Amino acid sequence: MLCGEYSFQLYCADVHKAPAAPPPRPLPPQRPPVLTLPFLSLRLSVSAVKILFPRLQSDLSQISFELVAECPETGARAGLLHTPHGAIETPVFMPVGTHAAVKGLSQRDLAEDLGVKILLANTYHLFLRPGHELIRKMGGLHRFMSWPNAILTDSGGFQVFSLSGLRKITDEGVIFQSHLDGDLHTFTPESTVDVQLAFGSDICMVLDECPEYPVTHEYARQSMHRTVRWAQQADRHHRMRMSESATRHALFPIVQGSMFPDLRAVCARSLVDLDSDGYAVGGLSVGEPRALSLEMVEATRDILPRQKPRYAMGVGMPKELPEYVARGIDMMDCVLPSRNARNGYLFTSEGRLIVKHARYKDDERPIDEKCQCYTCRRYSRSYLRHLFLSGEILYSSLATRHNVRRYLDIMCEIRHAIISFTFPEYLKCVRSASLDAE
Amino acid sequence: MLCGEYSFQLYCADVHKAPAAPPPRPLPPQRPPVLTLPFLSLRLSVSAVKILFPRLQSDLSQISFELVAECPETGARAGLLHTPHGAIETPVFMPVGTHAAVKGLSQRDLAEDLGVKILLANTYHLFLRPGHELIRKMGGLHRFMSWPNAILTDSGGFQVFSLSGLRKITDEGVIFQSHLDGDLHTFTPESTVDVQLAFGSDICMVLDECPEYPVTHEYARQSMHRTVRWAQQADRHHRMRMSESATRHALFPIVQGSMFPDLRAVCARSLVDLDSDGYAVGGLSVGEPRALSLEMVEATRDILPRQKPRYAMGVGMPKELPEYVARGIDMMDCVLPSRNARNGYLFTSEGRLIVKHARYKDDERPIDEKCQCYTCRRYSRSYLRHLFLSGEILYSSLATRHNVRRYLDIMCEIRHAIISFTFPEYLKCVRSASLDAE
Repeated sequence: MLCGEYSFQLYCADVHKAPAAPPPRPLPPQRPPVLTLPFLSLRLSVSAVKILFPRLQSDLSQISFELVAECPETGARAGLLHTPHGAIETPVFMPVGTHAAVKGLSQRDLAEDLGVKILLANTYHLFLRPGHELIRKMGGLHRFMSWPNAILTDSGGFQVFSLSGLRKITDEGVIFQSHLDGDLHTFTPESTVDVQLAFGSDICMVLDECPEYPVTHEYARQSMHRTVRWAQQADRHHRMRMSESATRHALFPIVQGSMFPDLRAVCARSLVDLDSDGYAVGGLSVGEPRALSLEMVEATRDILPRQKPRYAMGVGMPKELPEYVARGIDMMDCVLPSRNARNGYLFTSEGRLIVKHARYKDDERPIDEKCQCYTCRRYSRSYLRHLFLSGEILYSSLATRHNVRRYLDIMCEIRHAIISFTFPEYLKCVRSASLDAE
Repeated sequence: MLCGEYSFQLYCADVHKAPAAPPPRPLPPQRPPVLTLPFLSLRLSVSAVKILFPRLQSDLSQISFELVAECPETGARAGLLHTPHGAIETPVFMPVGTHAAVKGLSQRDLAEDLGVKILLANTYHLFLRPGHELIRKMGGLHRFMSWPNAILTDSGGFQVFSLSGLRKITDEGVIFQSHLDGDLHTFTPESTVDVQLAFGSDICMVLDECPEYPVTHEYARQSMHRTVRWAQQADRHHRMRMSESATRHALFPIVQGSMFPDLRAVCARSLVDLDSDGYAVGGLSVGEPRALSLEMVEATRDILPRQKPRYAMGVGMPKELPEYVARGIDMMDCVLPSRNARNGYLFTSEGRLIVKHARYKDDERPIDEKCQCYTCRRYSRSYLRHLFLSGEILYSSLATRHNVRRYLDIMCEIRHAIISFTFPEYLKCVRSASLDAE
């Protein structure tokens, strides 16, 4: 038995023993008239069901996506993503827990205090240490890290392709050298699905090739076609595994094509044929100008199916979050809130705060007076600056807690704006505030 | 205004504005017959008063010590130490927050989860960074670090005397070089009192000379006399400051004398003349054999006044805690639980656990099945080992939380044993378990 609380153990156990789930409910056809009032009653009924039948949530052991509202002007969407570990309000930001831990934050900090419903863990790192077989033996990643909510794992592709010099790409997959001990390993489209199923991830990602920036059109074309072939192989393998499995785990393929809209369109069209549970836009944040990242998302927005969740991988800065949502994105992840926190960069509703600056030496105010996180309710800038300069690990955990909360607050604002049909005004407001700050 | 919660601000503000408190209540004469039943009713009435008149606690702006029970065989004592920031059940272990933070633990982890009532902060470190004047400006250490309970600060002597080569002792005090920037500073008996009053410490310590081990009898004698003179100067200065102050802060002198019982006895007798609020036994844990540390505590147990709290500085290992208590000690502090935690050494009711050992790779059990700390309720040895090997800071905070809880649990067991008159059996049990473990 794991050391988690009894109720949590039961909850996990139920999920893992759940019978094969029915296929996702049929969704409305593409581009119907924009939802107006009905979403309100839908939301109420979802809440009512949750209150009246709390067990239903864990019995819904499948991924399905429910559109709750859509901005008629931008196409920004608010939805509900149902997973075997709870429903997630979208658009959603997923904090990154590379080694099965968001740096410095406990399960309670994340799930109870911050209300995180889904987090991301890195397949590459967990495959190398502690290894997927150990995680399987420990009852999956949820039990291993004592995490009650949903988990998305990447395929490891991005990390492997960052190991330039330590990896070799073939049509079968990628051979790479562990950064820990130099051992050689191979990831294939099939093996990364199996690794992620050993983790028990609610959402798995296909192995993709993520080219660096810039690359030639020809290289990007070949690479994109390889990514599509890998996605097809991964999809077949995943369907076979799911047909044998009592539990349900989604698989999202990833649109690539470097910074070439034509290649991205070809890629997306091929992936749509797979009728996957959701789609990701990858190959962003690899050094390209920010405008180009947004353009690449736009290049496939009308190709990716409206009724499936769309995930922009590895983005972005706070002011960019609504920009992605304005381009039809429902899910995002990024190490920025946690990494910047540790490095002394704090995000506030008024812009960025560099905690080591002497001006905060005797500043009794919280990081952000509008923030309700534990750090802001309890500690001053002055104290946090002192902890930062003293190299105290408490600083990292308090700062990360704040920065993650800031991201979640932004997502909350965005969702609220979409649902209340004020998203275009909200976006305008964010854009002018960003201009002011520059 | 600081960012703490409103109720906490009010609480602090009240304490700092409280009128000069009446002198400590007279205590029973030395060595009366051992308390039997009356302590029970006393405890009940203290609790009842707390429930009925919660404000009374903060109005009691003085340090006083109340004996609740005493072991007739060993002289081990259970008491209540009243401070302007709450009453503390003794014997008590004080976690160390060197830079105004116990490494990796938030105020909530410490005060709410672990129930810590008093912690120790280091004057040397806080004097250098962020500086006592800044802390005074920020409303004192309690407000600065958002800590609602009591604080004891050392005098900085121990740290300064550890800076061999970077300090020079004179009869006036000690000149030392900052380990941060090489600047020269001076600590005198008077200045360290002022620094600690700027912190607003509930319990201040006098500047003492802490000789290394071993030293000659002659050096120890001279050094001890210097410590006594400094204590007399500090005491005069502190009484003068208290006569001007609206708040009350205790000052404990420190018994020195290296490992020479005769010198310790002379020192203690001189310090008793000061009629201080409490007494510390210093100069321990400087490299001497453990038996000698205990012998040095014994050397002054019958000299130090029974009705005052006694504090053994910088001790000890879990199995040593009851040994100090058996020698009349009421307060202890040590970096061991937090430092060992970070280094992978976890204390359990069954002995020490070295978390990196391969045997814990797939161990689903908590660190200690008998422990109720957050870490043990939530996480497995397997997961903690993974976090440790991955260098995750979450490991440090979870491990520290456990180790501190282990120390507090031991103190709780000790107190319970004293109150229920089973302390000799408890001590016997701990000793035989220690022998088994060796």
